[in-house]
Order: sequence, then structure tokens, then C-alpha cells
Amino acid sequence: MRTFKLTLEYDGSGFNGWQLQSNAKRTVQGELEAVLLKFFKRRVPVIGSGRTDAGVHARGQVAHFRVDTLMSCDEIQRAFNYNLPQDVVVLRVEEESLKFHAQLSAKRKTYSYHVLNRSFASALERERCCFFPRKLNIPLMRKEAREFVGTKDFSSFANVDPSHKGDAVRTLYRLDIKKHGNRIVFWIEADGFLYKMVRNIVGTLLGVGSGRFPAGSALKILQAKDRRAAGVAVVPQGLFLEEVKY
Amino acid sequence: MRTFKLTLEYDGSGFNGWQLQSNAKRTVQGELEAVLLKFFKRRVPVIGSGRTDAGVHARGQVAHFRVDTLMSCDEIQRAFNYNLPQDVVVLRVEEESLKFHAQLSAKRKTYSYHVLNRSFASALERERCCFFPRKLNIPLMRKEAREFVGTKDFSSFANVDPSHKGDAVRTLYRLDIKKHGNRIVFWIEADGFLYKMVRNIVGTLLGVGSGRFPAGSALKILQAKDRRAAGVAVVPQGLFLEEVKY
Repeated sequence: MRTFKLTLEYDGSGFNGWQLQSNAKRTVQGELEAVLLKFFKRRVPVIGSGRTDAGVHARGQVAHFRVDTLMSCDEIQRAFNYNLPQDVVVLRVEEESLKFHAQLSAKRKTYSYHVLNRSFASALERERCCFFPRKLNIPLMRKEAREFVGTKDFSSFANVDPSHKGDAVRTLYRLDIKKHGNRIVFWIEADGFLYKMVRNIVGTLLGVGSGRFPAGSALKILQAKDRRAAGVAVVPQGLFLEEVKY
Repeated sequence: MRTFKLTLEYDGSGFNGWQLQSNAKRTVQGELEAVLLKFFKRRVPVIGSGRTDAGVHARGQVAHFRVDTLMSCDEIQRAFNYNLPQDVVVLRVEEESLKFHAQLSAKRKTYSYHVLNRSFASALERERCCFFPRKLNIPLMRKEAREFVGTKDFSSFANVDPSHKGDAVRTLYRLDIKKHGNRIVFWIEADGFLYKMVRNIVGTLLGVGSGRFPAGSALKILQAKDRRAAGVAVVPQGLFLEEVKY
């Protein structure tokens, strides 16, 4: 048996998220396993570093599978890219040790979240960003964002996920807010993320930046450890899984 | 009667080009006129600076229409953006003199053309670039590109267009080739463009850069004044109408 690590780019718009479902809906995992089934004539499970929701994109999702084959990494990459639909692409294939596990071995993940801050939406980027028309106080958002960095209990920012086990303590290494004209990009790196955590944090910061929540809200909401305290989650189409580190 | 100038962004993927057609296909002009019909209860023609083909995008297409109304420019913009489908957006509305004509008054146009130069396509940008897998000699392409700048006869780069009248002499002010990692962007500005001229020029330069055509081909093909001499036109999805100057 050999273990292969895949690095993936996908456009989440046409998928019902990463994870294979019992209904017939399109998922990224389902498309990858369909190619492996064609090649190996049996079901080969593809394990992702984590799930992404419907509409969420990836520039660096990681997954692994184990199979007995003589194919090279290059041959596997070409086989995937020739057979996959156009909205998912295999960027890299690497052989790993049998101990490698895309989810359990992951050390850090980076997401970006893209906001278009103007009074009307975008035609070209409508599936790649969140349109937010209200004026934003970026310096205040950056100040509040610092409250999230470090090892914290993120209960207030976790939507209930029936498959979730364990506590809500995560270590956030980085939360940067970059401004390029009317484009605002959040960069968030952590040792792990709770369900909808990025979208809940961004929604809270937009609430503070637009004056809907008073200054000091980030710390207050964190300390509440109660999902009802936070802002609403922003839409999935602004979210990109950028990188998974091992 | 008042004249309004519209600056438009659109995603060409879902349109059968700019121009209204007798069949039922979706066009940008058709969507704009449908909104005006709803507001003014009669057909108000919307005249573009020029047509764009199916799949071609715009970040700064310009159009005008004349109508008798008390609406302000802001009200017209909001009315359009509230009623238009998501793949076309009105970026600006300005009132112009009655002499203004989006096509006839245009002085210069700028297009960009986006190439992804790697061995496999992109999932996220598949509708926004041309995927070109062969190695490119960028310095040679830049050298050949200089042949196009100035006042030249572009017959070799014009596909036959039944509505085209007049000669093929155009003045090209700028043809820059920028490289950002494996993204190559062509910027082309001219006083006017013949049908498929940008896509034929880019196709020819990719032919030279990949070694399919020998060095010196740009000048030779220009001098031939024969469409059969040039490279094949590249795909429409890499092309963006960026700006029209008046």
C-alpha cells in the first residue's frame, strides 16, 4: 500500500461542499473518489484535511488516499486532471509515509475571506466575495481582531456541528485585515477551526467595523462563550481554504 | 431628452455577447434594454462603445441611451442594479451632452488578456483566463509585441465581420506583457479594434513565444495583410474590456 497526498484547488459554487453525501448531490470528495473508482475498480476513500461547506472555495485543500499501484505521482496527477470536472483541479501529488493522515496530521490551516466594500455588488466576482455596502472602520476592526489571536475558547464563534467532539479551545496564530481599494481581505491562520468559525469571526468584525456592535465587542463576545452573542456568519462564497500545513 | 452614459461590468460567461439578437439568446444589451422598458414603458435603445463576443468580460464597457426623465444619475444606477441579473452591474451613470455617442465619440479602448501558463488548468479561474501549458519565451514575445505599436494595417489580425466597413488601419498605443508568476497579462490600448483583433494578436504572440512561429513572425504577418498568415485566435474567456476613453 502507498499513501498519496493531494493538494487541491476547487470552485465551491457548483458543489454541495467537500463531504460525500448519501443523497446524489455533487461533492468534491465524491468527484475525486469517482476518478479513483474508474482507475482502481474499487472504492478508494479520499480523506480531506477537513470539510468545506457548499460555496466555499479552496486554493490549497489537502487530502490523502492509500492504494496499491505502480503509478507515479505525475501519472496520478494527470489521471485526475484529465478525468475530473473543470471545477476541481489537482495542483500537486506527493507520496507520503503510511502514517500520514490529511486530517489528523494537519498542524495549521490558513483561510482567506474576501469582502467587496462598495454600494453595489460585482458581476465578475459575485461567486468569489461577500458584498458589504456599509462604510467600515478598518483601524477599529484591526484593533478588535487582535483579541482573537492566541489560545482562546471560541465557543461563541462555533455553530453547532453534530459531528463535533471535544472542546472549543483553538490557537489562532494570525488574523490580518488587508485593504486593497474597496477589497478587504481577512487572513486567518490557526491550529484548527470550529464549524463556521471563520465566517462567524468575520461577521462579528464587520458588525464592529460598521457600527452595528460597539467597540470592545470582540472581547465581550469571546468571553461570553455563547454562540448567540456573536454576529451572523457571512456568506460562504467569500471564503477560501488557502493552505494546510503538516 | 437627456443623454446618460453607463459604465458597465459584466461576466461574459452567461451571455451570447453584447449585441441584441433576433433569437431569444441572452445579451448584455438585451438585459439593459429590458430594465429601461420596465421603467419607461417603451423601447429605449442602449448603444455600446462596441460589441463584445460571447464569453468576453468587461470591467469598463461604456454605453449610452437618451430618454426624457427627471430621474437623477444615482436613481438610474440604483434602478439598474436592483433590476439587472447578477452578471451585469452598472458601475457609474453620468449625464452627457446630446452630442455624446458611446461608439462614435470613443477615442481609445483598453483590453486586457489573461493567460495561465502551467501544465494544468485552473478550477477557480476557468472562465477568466486562457490556459496555455507550453513554455513561453516572454522576452521574445515583448520584443515582437513592439512591432504592433504605432499606426499599422491590421488586416492580418481581423476576422471577417460582415458589418465591418472601412480600412484596417488602427493606431496601437500600448501592448505590454506583464508576468505575475505563472499569470501572463497582455494590456492593449488602441484608437479602435477590428473584429477579434486582440485575440488574434495574442494568439500570434503565444505562437512566437512557444516556438511554433519563428522569431520575426510578428512583422512578417503584419506585412502579409492576410488573415491566413496569423495565429489562431485565443479563447474569449481570457479577454476583458477594461476602459473606453472619450
